[in-house]
Amino acid sequence: MTQKLIYEGKAKKIFETSNPNELMMEYKDSLTAFNALKKGEFSGKGQLNCQISTHLFKLLSKNKIPHHWIRTENKNQMVVVKTKIIPLEVVVRNIIAGSLAKKLGIEEGRALKKPLVELYYKDDALGDPFVSDDQAFEFGWAQPDQLQQMKKLALTINEILTPSFAEVGLKVVDFKLEFGLDPSGVLVLADEISPDCMRLWDMQTNEKMDKDRFRRDLGNIEGAYKQVLERIERIQV
Amino acid sequence: MTQKLIYEGKAKKIFETSNPNELMMEYKDSLTAFNALKKGEFSGKGQLNCQISTHLFKLLSKNKIPHHWIRTENKNQMVVVKTKIIPLEVVVRNIIAGSLAKKLGIEEGRALKKPLVELYYKDDALGDPFVSDDQAFEFGWAQPDQLQQMKKLALTINEILTPSFAEVGLKVVDFKLEFGLDPSGVLVLADEISPDCMRLWDMQTNEKMDKDRFRRDLGNIEGAYKQVLERIERIQV
Repeated sequence: MTQKLIYEGKAKKIFETSNPNELMMEYKDSLTAFNALKKGEFSGKGQLNCQISTHLFKLLSKNKIPHHWIRTENKNQMVVVKTKIIPLEVVVRNIIAGSLAKKLGIEEGRALKKPLVELYYKDDALGDPFVSDDQAFEFGWAQPDQLQQMKKLALTINEILTPSFAEVGLKVVDFKLEFGLDPSGVLVLADEISPDCMRLWDMQTNEKMDKDRFRRDLGNIEGAYKQVLERIERIQV
Repeated sequence: MTQKLIYEGKAKKIFETSNPNELMMEYKDSLTAFNALKKGEFSGKGQLNCQISTHLFKLLSKNKIPHHWIRTENKNQMVVVKTKIIPLEVVVRNIIAGSLAKKLGIEEGRALKKPLVELYYKDDALGDPFVSDDQAFEFGWAQPDQLQQMKKLALTINEILTPSFAEVGLKVVDFKLEFGLDPSGVLVLADEISPDCMRLWDMQTNEKMDKDRFRRDLGNIEGAYKQVLERIERIQV
């Protein structure tokens, strides 16, 4: 069956399906960082992220988190509910790293007293700027009740992922989520959950097991992603 | 009486006084922008800002806003309550301009649906980054009740300034406030209120009457500041 490509992003392609309420999401092998100024790829990366995401959506299903995943059909393709994406990236942080460390001049690795939720406006041309709740309302990116629900879901997801990852020796440093409204207007978790949009550190060694290996030229990206899949699959779903 | 200089900033000097609960704030003639990368000055600028601030503190007194101003002793010196400054700049915006316009790729001049309050962490070395309420709590810059009070006071001050300035032909585009805790722990407005930390546009012509004349090399900075003082003094206090 030929599918119509309706969107191609930095790491995924989205196709229409025969069902108007469903989309096919294909994970690409490409890696990008710094708003696509740095580009790379490795063969099989799409499959790894698709398998990791699949397992994590199953874990979230078990924990009653509403999400867009329906089924994974091929190694790098999943069928998802068609949603209207809310143009905000919701970031949850447990440990200071990345842009927050840089912004505040703090060394990476300090644990936060409690998880921080941050919003970024999804706009590549503007570099996905950090925004406040009030800005999100003012510019109509989300309604107050939606934003409250997104933040609550993000913190609940963190409470599910953090102990599960700890069981398999992975520290959840931070991660980025996206949300959308399904055809009946219900807010659900969308996009993916993979080492492309999480910081994961080995519990014992603090070795980075995520896209920072690519961003910072640490090498063995493929090995780290494979390790993550292998460990994640040990989490019972 | 010789006074001990205890702090010198970009636009003001702070001296001890014989009263341990009071400080002398001296307004300098210097102008700086872009975190002091751009420097200038004009003779009498300190006096203008001190006189403008004085009049506005009187206006706020009339409206029961707690603030640090006690009296203006010389043309460019005011005696203020000694406060412990909260390291957050509180910005109120009525019209999109400056950093917000740049961040969101929006042309300057669009009115906001309702006034926006933003927080910036006061740290020159970090370039005063934009921060969220949650970050302010996490890093201990303000307590939740203090922040709520600061934001409420900022919006009330906007409600006082905006119509008063309109009477004398000035649009309040945005302004920056700082707050401190007085010796008994009460939150009060501190710092200054002048064209150095406000955007003021002429109601008829939209001509800029504030530090943007310096930032953007528009010339006649002194004339604009003098105009602001002359108009502001027509506001009854």
